[in-house]
Amino acid sequence: MQTQQPFLSNAWYAAALATEVDTDILFNRTILNTSVVLYRTKNGEAVALHDRCPHRFAPLSMGSREEDVLVCPYHGLKFDSNGACVHNPHGAQRIPERCSVKRFPLVERDGFLWIWMGDAEADLNAIPDYTPLVSGHENSVGFTYMYIKANYQLILDNVMDLSHIDHLHGEIISTRGKLSPVAPALTETTNTVTARWEWTQQPAMLILNQFLPEPDDEARQFFDITWTAPANIQLSVGATQDADAPLSLDSSVGQYDLHTCTPETATTTHYFFATRRNHIEDDAEYNAFKIQAMHDAFVTEDGPILEALQKEMNTDDLFGMRPVLMSNDVAPVKMRQHLIKLIDMERGQ
Amino acid sequence: MQTQQPFLSNAWYAAALATEVDTDILFNRTILNTSVVLYRTKNGEAVALHDRCPHRFAPLSMGSREEDVLVCPYHGLKFDSNGACVHNPHGAQRIPERCSVKRFPLVERDGFLWIWMGDAEADLNAIPDYTPLVSGHENSVGFTYMYIKANYQLILDNVMDLSHIDHLHGEIISTRGKLSPVAPALTETTNTVTARWEWTQQPAMLILNQFLPEPDDEARQFFDITWTAPANIQLSVGATQDADAPLSLDSSVGQYDLHTCTPETATTTHYFFATRRNHIEDDAEYNAFKIQAMHDAFVTEDGPILEALQKEMNTDDLFGMRPVLMSNDVAPVKMRQHLIKLIDMERGQ
Amino acid sequence: MQTQQPFLSNAWYAAALATEVDTDILFNRTILNTSVVLYRTKNGEAVALHDRCPHRFAPLSMGSREEDVLVCPYHGLKFDSNGACVHNPHGAQRIPERCSVKRFPLVERDGFLWIWMGDAEADLNAIPDYTPLVSGHENSVGFTYMYIKANYQLILDNVMDLSHIDHLHGEIISTRGKLSPVAPALTETTNTVTARWEWTQQPAMLILNQFLPEPDDEARQFFDITWTAPANIQLSVGATQDADAPLSLDSSVGQYDLHTCTPETATTTHYFFATRRNHIEDDAEYNAFKIQAMHDAFVTEDGPILEALQKEMNTDDLFGMRPVLMSNDVAPVKMRQHLIKLIDMERGQ
Repeated sequence: MQTQQPFLSNAWYAAALATEVDTDILFNRTILNTSVVLYRTKNGEAVALHDRCPHRFAPLSMGSREEDVLVCPYHGLKFDSNGACVHNPHGAQRIPERCSVKRFPLVERDGFLWIWMGDAEADLNAIPDYTPLVSGHENSVGFTYMYIKANYQLILDNVMDLSHIDHLHGEIISTRGKLSPVAPALTETTNTVTARWEWTQQPAMLILNQFLPEPDDEARQFFDITWTAPANIQLSVGATQDADAPLSLDSSVGQYDLHTCTPETATTTHYFFATRRNHIEDDAEYNAFKIQAMHDAFVTEDGPILEALQKEMNTDDLFGMRPVLMSNDVAPVKMRQHLIKLIDMERGQ
Repeated sequence: MQTQQPFLSNAWYAAALATEVDTDILFNRTILNTSVVLYRTKNGEAVALHDRCPHRFAPLSMGSREEDVLVCPYHGLKFDSNGACVHNPHGAQRIPERCSVKRFPLVERDGFLWIWMGDAEADLNAIPDYTPLVSGHENSVGFTYMYIKANYQLILDNVMDLSHIDHLHGEIISTRGKLSPVAPALTETTNTVTARWEWTQQPAMLILNQFLPEPDDEARQFFDITWTAPANIQLSVGATQDADAPLSLDSSVGQYDLHTCTPETATTTHYFFATRRNHIEDDAEYNAFKIQAMHDAFVTEDGPILEALQKEMNTDDLFGMRPVLMSNDVAPVKMRQHLIKLIDMERGQ
Repeated sequence: MQTQQPFLSNAWYAAALATEVDTDILFNRTILNTSVVLYRTKNGEAVALHDRCPHRFAPLSMGSREEDVLVCPYHGLKFDSNGACVHNPHGAQRIPERCSVKRFPLVERDGFLWIWMGDAEADLNAIPDYTPLVSGHENSVGFTYMYIKANYQLILDNVMDLSHIDHLHGEIISTRGKLSPVAPALTETTNTVTARWEWTQQPAMLILNQFLPEPDDEARQFFDITWTAPANIQLSVGATQDADAPLSLDSSVGQYDLHTCTPETATTTHYFFATRRNHIEDDAEYNAFKIQAMHDAFVTEDGPILEALQKEMNTDDLFGMRPVLMSNDVAPVKMRQHLIKLIDMERGQ
């Protein structure tokens, strides 16, 4: 049976939350099947190197640091933060040719460390821009990381088809059946798919209604999601009871979220999530409660289904398995089609 | 090296003990590499469906029930007990073409749920008939289930060659070396192999002698086993001290057993066992003790050897490994030869 | 990518420490992907048989012993210590043709049981000779066994390039940076590679300096290592403060070690180590402390790196991965080149 596409490699992926990497540790993470060591120089700059000494392939993350220099744990070769070998203790101490470690382009932005794994030159104009995440009060934003034993596209499918929330999740984010009948409005570019749903429900979603003037009354709501290749989905959701207001995040009670998925392997994914709300923005306790609740919902509600899909599908290709597709699949299917095209293009096919 | 035959698929296998499936739960079991969800309708009828929603392949067994209807946990599609989609909450709520789940023929009989996994029409005349299991006192019969990490044919081999009992098992069922020298009488049809052993031992097997007139004296004994394709072995064993009695279950102290093996994968098996005795039939305490003791013997004595064989043989074909065969292999070898023919025939070879 | 060479099979490997195998147990160990059962006859002779009954492939090590005869746990076939079937309890009790178990040549020498797994006739002239191990006081020698989840050549590389000790290991065996600059002197034969390092350090290695006349003063030191195909490395290390003494084990404080690696599979290895010192030879307490300390250093310092290399390299071929090689790689690279030649020759390439 046809198997899954390879990954798009000339693209930015979230390597880590900015807070996962600090100046004290050497942080190992496998990204697109490649071992990466992440750390911060004494200036605070985050660096990503291939976590493989070119000599005998020992992981540098098992070694030690001397200021910004990494020391291989096995035979003591030293590499600076550019990946250049700066010391060879052996023989005449000559630095051998080819003795360097690949440094991956890494950019810190909006609370994430974005990495470029491909061989093509990193496209600095393409660094994801999710500035709203970090534009508000520090107590209005939360970040979290989840490890999911499923292919990253299954996670993207999950977010692109928000109709699942009334079925998989609890009362707290229910649309009371109002979302599923709505066909989303779609717009596309080469590397983006945007979908928008609008509806009315009573009361509004329970994560939002408590902040509306009349919590128990009807409210107009919307979802806006934009997938940007390869694996970022920005989601905005809002509710308003002002009949004259435009249905947008600026004029409603809502939140601005980012879901971003970084393949570890074909069957495992680093799943990052960030959310910024536009209400009770200075409430640290609520902020901590909310990100934990969302983390837990992903882990206990989405996670088991996604991992069950992975087991059932193994590495077969979704379309090759001839799924029965419905109106709610339009956004994830468009997304997958764009991704296939981009991957084929990258591979010169 | 030559690898094992595929499974015979147009055939009845035990999907579960009747008692494993009730009206409260959705019971998942993988059978011939396929996920199956088993449940009972409110009328008590047992049903088997492919445990895979045709939309995004989520397991229906992770979802919920609304009376006899299964609700997919992921996007809320509903399927009746025939596997037909009866509700689509999305868009215009039209039921998509092809939107159904395969219902596998499932028949409840003799304490088992028998399933037909193949694409050919289920042969209702071929449903296994082990009525004696359920024809006596309720306290005279026991059923049990074991999960064995070995190919199903290794388990069938084990039962078809009863000479192993003096070597692998303890005193309790010893024939005191009398069984191994006996060449069994064989009879065959296309899909059955029957073997019969007769011998005399003193005392009789310890599971039987206590119910004979003179427990310590010599007794005549017999084993009758019949394999029926694909994976059922009916075994009767009895002992008598009446010199004039025919050597049959009716005129001896004995029991009527069924061993039936259902492949989960090429290397793992659902092993079911049932036994009905014809003595102290109303003794509930003895009944519970006996089925537990037999279960434990399978798990602690046969199980480790079967799993060691699986490790040693991996997925190589038994005959391809050129085993040294002996007189005691005649029944299992005949069984494997019939099975190969039946599988080849099914595959049009 | 090119994958690792197969094993050299017509050669002697350490099957076990002599003390691992005694007269009471049937000891199972997988060697070059083959199950072997090791035991001692009542005369004390160590025997190695294929741990696979030729009938149904049950492991004989799961069975029982009757004096020197092994009884198969499954159907009671009996095999003597030559692997010949001496009893078949079935039918007419005739011993079937081909009914034997392969007996592997096994020789006890220098505290090890050496096994020959190949099909060619065992070369008794090629049995490894490490007599010095067992030529001193019984309290001057220690033996240990470690199970490492890495290809055996990665372990051999580790020992052949002793420059790692200043980087991977602690203060106790540090050369204080004096070893890495030294290019070892090499000598080779078809199936051996010898390397020798000489240097001066102050103080001497902490495992040795306490036994020198002036522990804190400078000492001359040496390492001598000889790899002998397929997987034995004899290492001698010594230190002296006598300016006129030759730099040899006889005239220094030092030890005579053997590292020998036996492949279990392509990715797992039985790693044996033995060491004999030439000082405080009768000190049993120090002897026990020392072998335990060396065992712990292998397990906690070398082991994690070796297993990380295995994960990173998987079954790819070292040279195919284009390692950056340095002056310290000369001995392990020569060793691998000889090994490739010997394996190719064995396979007629």
